[in-house]
Parts: sequence; structure tokens; C-alpha cells
Amino acid sequence: MEYYSNQINRLIEELARLPGIGAKSAQRLAFYLLNQPKDNVRQLAETIMDAREHICYCKECFTLTDRELCPICSSSQRDHSTIMVVENTRDLAAYEKTGKYDGVYHVLHGAISPMLGIGPGDIKLKELMTRLQQDISEVIIATNSSLEGETTAMYISKLIKPTGIKVSRIASGVPVGGDLECIDEVTLLRALEGRVEL
Amino acid sequence: MEYYSNQINRLIEELARLPGIGAKSAQRLAFYLLNQPKDNVRQLAETIMDAREHICYCKECFTLTDRELCPICSSSQRDHSTIMVVENTRDLAAYEKTGKYDGVYHVLHGAISPMLGIGPGDIKLKELMTRLQQDISEVIIATNSSLEGETTAMYISKLIKPTGIKVSRIASGVPVGGDLECIDEVTLLRALEGRVEL
Repeated sequence: MEYYSNQINRLIEELARLPGIGAKSAQRLAFYLLNQPKDNVRQLAETIMDAREHICYCKECFTLTDRELCPICSSSQRDHSTIMVVENTRDLAAYEKTGKYDGVYHVLHGAISPMLGIGPGDIKLKELMTRLQQDISEVIIATNSSLEGETTAMYISKLIKPTGIKVSRIASGVPVGGDLECIDEVTLLRALEGRVEL
Repeated sequence: MEYYSNQINRLIEELARLPGIGAKSAQRLAFYLLNQPKDNVRQLAETIMDAREHICYCKECFTLTDRELCPICSSSQRDHSTIMVVENTRDLAAYEKTGKYDGVYHVLHGAISPMLGIGPGDIKLKELMTRLQQDISEVIIATNSSLEGETTAMYISKLIKPTGIKVSRIASGVPVGGDLECIDEVTLLRALEGRVEL
């Protein structure tokens, strides 16, 4: 690309490496940034570096945070005997947005996937088992409803069952507001199997 | 958003300010960056800052470049007597990709838009008129085919006509490979008006 200067090309290439950003979007972003006041651009760059430098895992639940204990683990208003196991911090945030769950979390940072070569040792499973030596009444498995999420859920439940702690799995079924004819067969069957008496 | 730490929230907010990036994409990008090796993230941040610090306008055609004269203006292989007027550097790049235009460019950095309060003084028009005092044989106006682009084209042509320099406008019509039934009426009429004898 002889028509842009090297620095612009490098910027476009770097931006195009981000997930969900293709060549055209990278170009648009690059020229947007080049037209912004220098201070705004410096602030963006510094925020990116700062966040990456200072973020670490919460030593209790392993979510991403900038403190030793995340706000949820350090709160006395949460029920520390109920642990919801999620795949990542975004899933944690999704449940927090409901505002109705008052237990704590455990972030696995992945799911077991033999296809991708991710085994039980590659996610924060050992750390979960260590936490279970405390006084825990229930573990709710909220991994995704994908093949990897289901495999992980099965694996964890088998691991926990012998300890006598209650293990549950969030329900699969038709999403609220979902139109039956638009929903795949597997979900429809799950919704039937998981039917509840009214 | 109590469930993320401040630094993550700030990163998400900064990313969500970029054009075409909504709240969900900003979250996805933020967690992608937090999971990348520190060196990669630092490189991205530095590329952004570097590009913004070192990019300036080419003193001849006003495209964005990191040199005093852009590669096109400093090339002896280009025809410096033909100037193509474009709205921005991306449009310049679009024509450069065709590989068939061997003149030089003039980047306006915008288009006249009374709606947005952008007048002739807000784009690089005075600079274009100054360039025309050199030996120029033709000015090709390649602003967009939008209301603003058309207004700008009309304005420029009226300004240049008295100097006796040839002024032309890129053709409007049916895009190559375009299906007639999918094309709007205005374009169809333009294509009819602009018909060429075979």
C-alpha cells in the first residue's frame, strides 16, 4: 500500500488484528484516530496500557480486577456459600446485570475443549476445588450451553459430587420472548425434557 | 457497572467512543486486550500514539503522511499537471488501488455542508486555488456522489472555470456488475443523462 505512509499502514495493520475488525473497519478507525485531538488519542493509548498493566486475577474467584479481591468477593452482602461457575468475566457481568443473584462467582477462564487441546488443567478448576474446602452449600454451573460448556459442566459435576456439595446447572430452554418456530431442535428437546409442573 | 473494576470500565468506555464500536464490541475488545501478552498490547498503544504524533498533511496535496511531501507528490513518474480532488485520504487510496490514475491529488478533508455548518473556508479549498497558479491542465473533481459531494463539486467548478483550466467530474451511473432493478431512480436517471455513444 504505497499510497499511505508507513506509520498509517502500521496503525491499520495493528487495528486489523483486533477481533471483529476487518480491513475496512481498521482503515476507518485509523483515520478517525488520526483526525482526533492528540490528547484524546494519547488518553486512549494510555488507558489501554494502564488497564493491561494493572489488571490481575481476583485471588478468590479469578475474575479480572485491579485489586487483590474483586468487589464481589470483598462484599459482606453476598452469600459466600453459593458459587456460580462461569467461563469468563463477561459471563459474570451478564449475571450481575440481572441484579438478582447474590452469591459469589468462580471464573474458569475457558472451557474444556479436546478439539482445541484445552484440558481440565488449562482452566481454573484446581482453584475451584480448593475453594470447596471452605463452607460451601451449592455450586451452580453456568458455563455456556455449547459443546465445550456442557463438557465442562459434566466434568465439574462429576468432580464435586463425591464431596456431597449440591451441584446444579442453569436451565436450558426456549429464551423468553423466543418464537418457537425460530428455535433449533436441540433447544426444543431440552425445553421439553426440562419442563416444570405448573 | 460495579462488577468490573474501574480500569476495565474506563477501557470499555474509551473503546466504545470509537466509531462503529458499540457497548458489546467495546467489552469484547477490552477483554481481548486484557488477555493478550503485555508486549502486544504495548505495541498497539505505541503504534496509535506514534501515528498520531508523527502524521501531518502533505504540504502539496494535504493527504495524511509522515513526510513533508507524500510519496505521490514527490514521485517524478506522476503527471503533476492533473489534479484529482477528493474528500479524504481513504478516497485517494480507493483511486490509487485502481492503479490506472497517474496524476496527483488534492485532499479537501471534508465537503461543503450547510446542514453541518461546514463552509468553503473549512475545507482545503484555498490551498487548491493556490496550487492552480502552477501549470495545471485539468482538475478532476472526485468528491462523493452525495448531496455534500455534489455541492462541493459545483462550488469548485464555478471557482475554477474563470481561470480557463479544464474541470471535469467523475461519471455517475450504474456500478459495474450492478443489477438495474436494484438501483435507485436517481442513479438510473444519471446513467441515462450521462449515456455515451458506442
